Amino acid sequence: MIDFNYYAPTEVVFGKESEEQVASLVRKYGGSKVLVHYGGGSARRSGLLDKILGLLEKDGIEYVTLGGVVPNPRLSKVHEGIELCRMEKVDFILAVGGGSVIDSAKAIGYGVFYNGEVWDIYMGRYTPVECLPIATVLTIPAAGSEMSESSVITNEDGDIKVGYSNDISRPKFAIMNPERTFTLPDFQTSAGVTDMIMHIMERYFSHDDDMTLTDAVAESIMCTMMDCIYEVLKDPENYRYRAQIMWGGSLAHNGLTGCGLTGDWATHQLGHELSGLFDATHGAALAAVWPSWARYVYKNNVSRFVRFAVNVLGVTNDYSDPEGTALRGIEAMEDFYSSIGMPINIEELIGREITDDEIKEMVRKCSRGDTVPQGKFKVLKADDIEAIYRMAR
Amino acid sequence: MIDFNYYAPTEVVFGKESEEQVASLVRKYGGSKVLVHYGGGSARRSGLLDKILGLLEKDGIEYVTLGGVVPNPRLSKVHEGIELCRMEKVDFILAVGGGSVIDSAKAIGYGVFYNGEVWDIYMGRYTPVECLPIATVLTIPAAGSEMSESSVITNEDGDIKVGYSNDISRPKFAIMNPERTFTLPDFQTSAGVTDMIMHIMERYFSHDDDMTLTDAVAESIMCTMMDCIYEVLKDPENYRYRAQIMWGGSLAHNGLTGCGLTGDWATHQLGHELSGLFDATHGAALAAVWPSWARYVYKNNVSRFVRFAVNVLGVTNDYSDPEGTALRGIEAMEDFYSSIGMPINIEELIGREITDDEIKEMVRKCSRGDTVPQGKFKVLKADDIEAIYRMAR
Repeated sequence: MIDFNYYAPTEVVFGKESEEQVASLVRKYGGSKVLVHYGGGSARRSGLLDKILGLLEKDGIEYVTLGGVVPNPRLSKVHEGIELCRMEKVDFILAVGGGSVIDSAKAIGYGVFYNGEVWDIYMGRYTPVECLPIATVLTIPAAGSEMSESSVITNEDGDIKVGYSNDISRPKFAIMNPERTFTLPDFQTSAGVTDMIMHIMERYFSHDDDMTLTDAVAESIMCTMMDCIYEVLKDPENYRYRAQIMWGGSLAHNGLTGCGLTGDWATHQLGHELSGLFDATHGAALAAVWPSWARYVYKNNVSRFVRFAVNVLGVTNDYSDPEGTALRGIEAMEDFYSSIGMPINIEELIGREITDDEIKEMVRKCSRGDTVPQGKFKVLKADDIEAIYRMAR
Repeated sequence: MIDFNYYAPTEVVFGKESEEQVASLVRKYGGSKVLVHYGGGSARRSGLLDKILGLLEKDGIEYVTLGGVVPNPRLSKVHEGIELCRMEKVDFILAVGGGSVIDSAKAIGYGVFYNGEVWDIYMGRYTPVECLPIATVLTIPAAGSEMSESSVITNEDGDIKVGYSNDISRPKFAIMNPERTFTLPDFQTSAGVTDMIMHIMERYFSHDDDMTLTDAVAESIMCTMMDCIYEVLKDPENYRYRAQIMWGGSLAHNGLTGCGLTGDWATHQLGHELSGLFDATHGAALAAVWPSWARYVYKNNVSRFVRFAVNVLGVTNDYSDPEGTALRGIEAMEDFYSSIGMPINIEELIGREITDDEIKEMVRKCSRGDTVPQGKFKVLKADDIEAIYRMAR
């Protein structure tokens, strides 16, 4: 078992009307001039944004706003935010939205204190030591960014999507009202749950398989998410099941499900290239490549895939045929993705066949010209990455 | 489902040689003059205390020491600690030990900032707004105090044992090295695991039974603890299983297993009276009263006890007889307690029959003269408390 650090200091305020506490929470964590960061029009249309601004005003907290964050959040918006924060002497960022808005907020938070180009941080050329305090009013449960140390930004110049993790960006508080997720379209709901489960799977598929407590907790969350998604797709305004999913997304990615495990994370980078090139929804891109990744790597630790098949997907264990059990687990996961409307290959994701040139471009980016391997469960070089994309085409 | 707050900011540093980081962690969280608080001789005998003091010295961090904390930590020691901290201008408390030492540290931390009698806080007469920063090097996994907001102190003047909870006392960091628990005697190991599981059960037995994610996580931790205790009793120096138990104790009580649930907590107060009067080990006192509590209250929510019986204890569900299934679950829990050397009634706990007068004294204290009811699953007045003690005698 590997040593680990667990640090998830975010104060979660969960429930109906939890937004009412926004102003007192901003004050509690030292905010006096706030950047309210948000995405498209839905935060405005739903009335949530006006409610938040009204509550800040009522409490005498100054703010500026910056909307227009898009899925796969862009570096140009981050630049805009950094400039605005400096000009307006902002000391706190409140992200109202989902993972894209929170990730954009984190990048702005780093950038404000760095005189160089913020993209350096995502390219590993500079390690930030300060970040503006971040907090969030969550409306899209998926990325888990509301409690995590990670953020993913897309540089439009080259369509490169890269993540960076640092504890200094963990949000101070996260306001979560499941009612705010009632209007999420089915596709977004399913893609979100796919992303949550994948955050757990990226940690679960590990060679360090002696932390049984982490495994048991991880499996309990995955199974609950898989149960709840069907209930939510049938009845989108079911508070009870929306709540499980909303909280599950945070637990999936706050570090809890990785304690004592190395983790893999290759599927995320494989999916990021698809999102970068085709602007594909993150969760859907993960579903499109995971089955191929799994079939390519499972022999590196068959027993791990057997455990997943049996404990998470309810596959009957054929003790005389571990490989068969492992493969039936991968099939069952494909069936799950299909049943909630997720693609299980690239053609289903982008609506046409992918070209050889496109695959080559993704391989080049994903391996950074074969200089950076991906994954730990099986270390993937450029050739491996190409093979997986071809299996997934 | 009830609304909830989740806040567990403690930085956990888990693994072999994690103690090596103690000085840098104290500095990170602002400590410059430390009270190193500890219990009996074991921290000294094992060499851990000297190691910690050496590391602080090497880093130029000043300290004073205060040992002698006993199980069911005493108010008099808390007074001593407060005086020492004020005299020495201590700005940080490092608890080296288990729950008793950490709880004593928390009480000292509150008391330093309060000019009145610190017992007022535990009696609900004063709410502290400040606490010295607390941190811990954990050696006895049980109480979960290393990540929790709670502490329990015994006032020798009247043998009254009372808990108090406040987020301001949550430890800044917790250093956990499972090797430090290798020498724990079997009885302490079993009592610790009993306490951990009870921290989950106190939350689990709730009328708010629609937070299935919390239930699933809670069950996964309880089942893992029940598996691991047998391995540890067979092989006390098994790092893998000691590690599950050590981390399980933190997860049991950091708030995770109570999200969305009201919780009960009557068994804890019933047990506290036994510890207060007979100086009984906390975990053992809980085992001695829980079965009687369970049989007295289970009819208030039979399905909850059925779920516990089936999902945690592996009892076969007799769908035609929910009450029978519930009762078989309580029996199975008794069997578990017995199998790890825990008492299942008061006579087994204290080694003799309890007298009527002793029961009356405990009832009076537990109900504060029938002015304070205990529990939420079933609200217990003085008569109920007496009935449970009599069932448990």
